[in-house]
Amino acid sequence: MKNINSLQKEVKIVKRLIKDEVIAEKNISDLYKYIFKSDGKRLRAKLSLITSSLNKRINKKRLKLAAVIELLHTATLVHDDVVDESQTRRGIKSVNTLWSNAHGVLIGDYIYSKAFILMVEIAEPKILYELANATNDISKGELIQLDALNNVSIDLKQLEAISYYKTGRLFEASAKTGAILSSGDRNFVSNVSKCAKNLGVLFQIKDDLLDYSLDEKAIGKPVFQDIKEGKVTYPFYFAYINADKNNKEKLLSYLGKNRLNIKSIYSLIQNLNGIKDTKLLASKYQNKAIKYANLINNKHIKAEMLKLIDSAFYRKK
Amino acid sequence: MKNINSLQKEVKIVKRLIKDEVIAEKNISDLYKYIFKSDGKRLRAKLSLITSSLNKRINKKRLKLAAVIELLHTATLVHDDVVDESQTRRGIKSVNTLWSNAHGVLIGDYIYSKAFILMVEIAEPKILYELANATNDISKGELIQLDALNNVSIDLKQLEAISYYKTGRLFEASAKTGAILSSGDRNFVSNVSKCAKNLGVLFQIKDDLLDYSLDEKAIGKPVFQDIKEGKVTYPFYFAYINADKNNKEKLLSYLGKNRLNIKSIYSLIQNLNGIKDTKLLASKYQNKAIKYANLINNKHIKAEMLKLIDSAFYRKK
Repeated sequence: MKNINSLQKEVKIVKRLIKDEVIAEKNISDLYKYIFKSDGKRLRAKLSLITSSLNKRINKKRLKLAAVIELLHTATLVHDDVVDESQTRRGIKSVNTLWSNAHGVLIGDYIYSKAFILMVEIAEPKILYELANATNDISKGELIQLDALNNVSIDLKQLEAISYYKTGRLFEASAKTGAILSSGDRNFVSNVSKCAKNLGVLFQIKDDLLDYSLDEKAIGKPVFQDIKEGKVTYPFYFAYINADKNNKEKLLSYLGKNRLNIKSIYSLIQNLNGIKDTKLLASKYQNKAIKYANLINNKHIKAEMLKLIDSAFYRKK
Repeated sequence: MKNINSLQKEVKIVKRLIKDEVIAEKNISDLYKYIFKSDGKRLRAKLSLITSSLNKRINKKRLKLAAVIELLHTATLVHDDVVDESQTRRGIKSVNTLWSNAHGVLIGDYIYSKAFILMVEIAEPKILYELANATNDISKGELIQLDALNNVSIDLKQLEAISYYKTGRLFEASAKTGAILSSGDRNFVSNVSKCAKNLGVLFQIKDDLLDYSLDEKAIGKPVFQDIKEGKVTYPFYFAYINADKNNKEKLLSYLGKNRLNIKSIYSLIQNLNGIKDTKLLASKYQNKAIKYANLINNKHIKAEMLKLIDSAFYRKK
């Protein structure tokens, strides 16, 4: 209980670190404040705080690293909203909707480079290397996904690669850089990284699953967005490979369409085991993540990681 | 003569360093190759090669630094084209036109993070710090400019700040990081940085001037774009403050309009000394840049900097 409280307290400090950024230019300051007004789950920041808790004497750097990771993640979200033309983010209007695409692109760049400035201040070459590479991989994943739009012949391996690059990669880097910062040994760094990587993919699979949900209110964000945007994600993928010619054609006709009867699509995908098979895949990643969590030779950190895996697997929003 | 050849040779190697980047994913590779197919002036890369030539024993790092700077610059251009909805870049269709805005945003992020990866490999904390800050300042400048669209009450100081952030800042960082890399003393670093900063603003003023040109063919890119996009740049600014009430209204009516009679606008702006006053401002920055160039205590580097200032001032495209 004490540990949870201390993690929540640290997350609050990280939040403040980010929000207290002073920007002299009023318009940029307004934009920045708007973006950080709404709270995400801060899972990535938590991951790095957990793995870096091996050595709390480096507390100032630990908090800064968590802030860097939160900034990097937020920059990708702002750019993603431009890419996907998303109307909302975390329950409020997206920057591209309330301001413009141009603002989304530029404030995203501003936040990215802010993250790099703080990263440089941490002054750990291995951390810089990992985060620069992770950022590159994220954009790679987004580009691969963009070019896979409306492509029903995508295979499971490619889908998993996209999930890894766009989500698992930053989970992995968050845990890894935290572990490096606290001077964990090779095994520790390797186990928390692999655990977090699989946790990240699990998180993405659950995200894809939640998008195929009939209860928009419970989720707190628009549903059936992926199919509308032409994105083949796991539920669609599994349904499609399980479908006969007739149902394949039906599914194909829904992909990329903005007006859909979501109830009938949900039934079709469910009947074709799209939901069930996706849940099975989620379990597979859950088990992999648990396997590596159990190899972590620090009781407290192991417990925190298992808790994160649990909440990712059972999350309802 | 020998020196020019060696600089050109080095620029070619930098070009190759950038182009030889191997990307396994075909679509990303195509996009990347397309962007680097067309050649810019590579002024920023040259600047860093010139100032780092103080110590040629560090040749591998020098070339890598120049590549980093070229990548950073290119990433800003790709994002700028999304921001400005530009149709062309360096004589060919822009990424956002030929692919999409989404591709422009993501490949820009890809190139940014690639630059950071190479930067980390150079492993010089002061260089990392300078380039991370410069990148942040560039996005700040672009945001300020974006929010100043159609604002005729902008003052000269604000216009100069925009020119510094969006252009002078990377010129400055290019020269500064080159000088740091070659272990130049404090005076050397300071003089080349200030020289390059003023050269950058001069370059931007000339850019704004060339946009107000009746000979589109000679320039090699669309003209009168700034006024069409609602951007108040120097020629418009000076004309506007020199104008009486009647002409002020006229000028205001042109700002942000896509269909314009460019001949009559040019005459109006010229008659109101918009061109002449901009040229005077360019001379002011030219003189400042020359002043600092003359303080550089290395004959060869001083000569190269003076040459760059000359070519920036007299450039016709």
